[in-house]
Amino acid sequence: MTIAGNLLIGQRARRGTNGEIYAIHAASGERMEPAFGGAGVADLDEACALAWAAFDTYRETQPDARATFLETIATNILALGDELVERCVAETGLPRARIEGERARTVGQLRMFAGVVRAGDYVEARIDPAQPARQPAPRPDLRLRHIGLGPVAVFGASNFPLAFSVAGGDTASALAAGCPVIVKAHPAHPGTSELVGLAVQQAVKTCGMPEGTFSLLFDSGLEIGQGLVRDRRIKAVGFTGSRHAGTALVAIANARPEPIPVYAEMSSINPVLLFPNALDARGEAIAQQFVQSLTLGAGQFCTNPGLIFAVDGPALERFIAAAAERLAQAPAATMLTPGIHRAFERSVDAFVQHPQVRTVARTHAPAGANQGHGALFSTTADAFREAKALHEEVFGAASLIVRCPDLNTMLELIESLEGQLTAALHIDEADYAAARTFLPALERRAGRVLVNGFGTGVEVAHAMVHGGPYPSTSDGRSTSVGSLAIRRFLRPVCYQDMPDALLPDALKASNPLAINRLLDGKVTLAT
Amino acid sequence: MTIAGNLLIGQRARRGTNGEIYAIHAASGERMEPAFGGAGVADLDEACALAWAAFDTYRETQPDARATFLETIATNILALGDELVERCVAETGLPRARIEGERARTVGQLRMFAGVVRAGDYVEARIDPAQPARQPAPRPDLRLRHIGLGPVAVFGASNFPLAFSVAGGDTASALAAGCPVIVKAHPAHPGTSELVGLAVQQAVKTCGMPEGTFSLLFDSGLEIGQGLVRDRRIKAVGFTGSRHAGTALVAIANARPEPIPVYAEMSSINPVLLFPNALDARGEAIAQQFVQSLTLGAGQFCTNPGLIFAVDGPALERFIAAAAERLAQAPAATMLTPGIHRAFERSVDAFVQHPQVRTVARTHAPAGANQGHGALFSTTADAFREAKALHEEVFGAASLIVRCPDLNTMLELIESLEGQLTAALHIDEADYAAARTFLPALERRAGRVLVNGFGTGVEVAHAMVHGGPYPSTSDGRSTSVGSLAIRRFLRPVCYQDMPDALLPDALKASNPLAINRLLDGKVTLAT
Repeated sequence: MTIAGNLLIGQRARRGTNGEIYAIHAASGERMEPAFGGAGVADLDEACALAWAAFDTYRETQPDARATFLETIATNILALGDELVERCVAETGLPRARIEGERARTVGQLRMFAGVVRAGDYVEARIDPAQPARQPAPRPDLRLRHIGLGPVAVFGASNFPLAFSVAGGDTASALAAGCPVIVKAHPAHPGTSELVGLAVQQAVKTCGMPEGTFSLLFDSGLEIGQGLVRDRRIKAVGFTGSRHAGTALVAIANARPEPIPVYAEMSSINPVLLFPNALDARGEAIAQQFVQSLTLGAGQFCTNPGLIFAVDGPALERFIAAAAERLAQAPAATMLTPGIHRAFERSVDAFVQHPQVRTVARTHAPAGANQGHGALFSTTADAFREAKALHEEVFGAASLIVRCPDLNTMLELIESLEGQLTAALHIDEADYAAARTFLPALERRAGRVLVNGFGTGVEVAHAMVHGGPYPSTSDGRSTSVGSLAIRRFLRPVCYQDMPDALLPDALKASNPLAINRLLDGKVTLAT
Repeated sequence: MTIAGNLLIGQRARRGTNGEIYAIHAASGERMEPAFGGAGVADLDEACALAWAAFDTYRETQPDARATFLETIATNILALGDELVERCVAETGLPRARIEGERARTVGQLRMFAGVVRAGDYVEARIDPAQPARQPAPRPDLRLRHIGLGPVAVFGASNFPLAFSVAGGDTASALAAGCPVIVKAHPAHPGTSELVGLAVQQAVKTCGMPEGTFSLLFDSGLEIGQGLVRDRRIKAVGFTGSRHAGTALVAIANARPEPIPVYAEMSSINPVLLFPNALDARGEAIAQQFVQSLTLGAGQFCTNPGLIFAVDGPALERFIAAAAERLAQAPAATMLTPGIHRAFERSVDAFVQHPQVRTVARTHAPAGANQGHGALFSTTADAFREAKALHEEVFGAASLIVRCPDLNTMLELIESLEGQLTAALHIDEADYAAARTFLPALERRAGRVLVNGFGTGVEVAHAMVHGGPYPSTSDGRSTSVGSLAIRRFLRPVCYQDMPDALLPDALKASNPLAINRLLDGKVTLAT
């Protein structure tokens, strides 16, 4: 595979002619070759037409064929080898080990969804057999399955160039659900995007999937991304990025003649609650774990711990001292893009200059282009209550410790927070009773509540929720990580008195797919 | 129980002072006593405060307690006896047998959701146990359950004064999901609403549920309904009504600082496709079934068959003649409200005067106030293609037959339709091959595809979908009828490394609720 700067539209690869995009070498700030041609409206229209034409065929592919397709994408990504890893490191500034780990995660995610497709539980087949003799009226035969919503537009995320980009979680779950995907590549890693796009494009071909199952578009501005969300053939959107961009896409989707769901994962500060006994017993150890989580990937995680709550006192002082010492030893780390770096510096400066905020520690000073100067701050409960600016996400390695006079105040401040992806509690057994009183507020406010850990490191699993109430996502009823993510791209269809010959396999009397089904309301395992 | 014209706010009953609402006797057009006092913003605020205060307690009630609460509502509704039936007949003009049937449906619906709550599958508990020895990193313990979204605003529907009103499908599914409910009563049946509201209020008390679990508000204008959707403590909305009102509520919900889901069931014309062999073999029988479905409840069903497609020819002529004969024998039927009646007459007149539309038959002429003059029309494929006004729902007993030159044209016209609640096919075995080519278009366009029947008569079942792509509903990923309706009011929460002592019962190691759970991705039945 070679990076050529091409759009991938179905099985075609061609240069876009609507402006040029260059990758920026994150560590040096230099422009990288080649140029990527931006897509025009004709390219967009062609990708949508192909996706629409593919939908009815693709969504009815046999489970094994679709699963094999997902597995082939995974194999093809691995086959890209070092070329992919090196390009990705250069474009993002993330360390090689992280990129290799992320590749493993991406491949694992595709394989997990292959398993989900083969198992077939996601179809949620339900059968209520006819009751012709029922009084006062017979019951018809009712059968329900879930089908894909239609072609899905996926926006690559800057901070997960593999796991939430071209063949990342949104793409994998949409493809698993039976939805063709058009990816709008993130301009920060176009080479990575093209390589992975070629891996998907090849899998479409070798697995005999319909041509429009996948397309990849580059865009030098907003035109193509917004055009995708507006296009009548697109039926859902997956997005990970800023609150500003996410809410803009939601507004476009809502203004369509036929509004569509936008799954935008946007903004979270991920409160961490240090309870008195745990803080007293092992504050230093927690501080060490905290700084590690804070600085991971230059702090560029949606689940980065941006806010620490604890009751003021000597134990908190020890925690702060330990965290400050650790952070002061941490190097400044290269950030993903000059734009992200600038935004980080701006946000951190606002904290530094805030009259009620104390700067507790900084990482090493930056030693190269785009290096983020990590920071730890502290403030009082009163200041936090008043200053809503302190409630806003800072994307990067920055965190704010809020000194609370007591646990009641801590709970009151938690109740003042917006929706979050995660909330973490650090507790020992003697804290359980207090922690229990916080759980209702945390459940209402976060998609994942975790104990004695930090939210960075999002396991790809069946029981994962990477989602949460607004504005952490635009739709808190869903997750973008884990097998439940497939549900975002499905809708139920009921078949009433449909002859067996016309029923989809998932609902036929003989259960040819051998899937679990809900029979008369009872879970009935495939035999 | 006595109809007093009161608001029910938690356990209180008091007269609203913001305007007056009177029921109109549907058949006579006369005003009925007593006056209902409209709610003001203070009433709204109090109901929301109570609902919010109730939420954390109510959502954690034990399954058996919550199920018993739903069953007690059902018992209390039955205990209202004839007073309820008579008032409901007077307010709606619907026949007594229909109201009794609807009461049975309402009670059955509440009992079904009691069963859903006891079974516990709706929680969708998932457990991925920790893998401390996993390389390169240990896997944490991950557990997922679904919890209620928060207090839900339910708008009573005019056309289902029991089954989709105060204690109807939206209320039953929201209460089952663990969400307190505030109902905005439909002004067309305030007496029915108060009686049922008293039944719910009493059940809250006798079952020891938190006071704010239920409130009922009357509103003489738009203020309270819109205010509910705007209130920060309301987290979801259930609505059945017009497209105009539904989209207005969606817009309000989207404009909130924290947007919330609105499940609005709005507008559907429910295409019926008559295939050649079935039409030829039993067109007269289908015509009889059709007219019965068309005139049921004065045609005031969301699933009313508003559109018939068939290939032109002698078989279709016989169908039309048979349908015309039947319809001409049907009486004009009292409609729900003067407003609905006026809108129906206006829409029907537009069809009568449309140059490309032929009036095939009318029911008997109206003989009393608010009686709808049912109508059957026909037009050509070309006219239907051009005139988008013919694609709009007429709420009442009116239907349009579209004469198609061939099946290809019929499919093309189907593809031009907006989203629908139902689509019906009338087919014999010789039609299966042709029908199969229509199924992808119908699945994409409708929530329920039915064979040799009509969509009126929506079974309350596990496999029912009463929902569909926009604009039939505002959210095609859901159903408002059947056990799956509970999902609308739920969101997933993940617990990571949470000590067993702090886990909710649904996720504890010992499975104290004895519910089915997904263990490491495998459905594991309770033992």
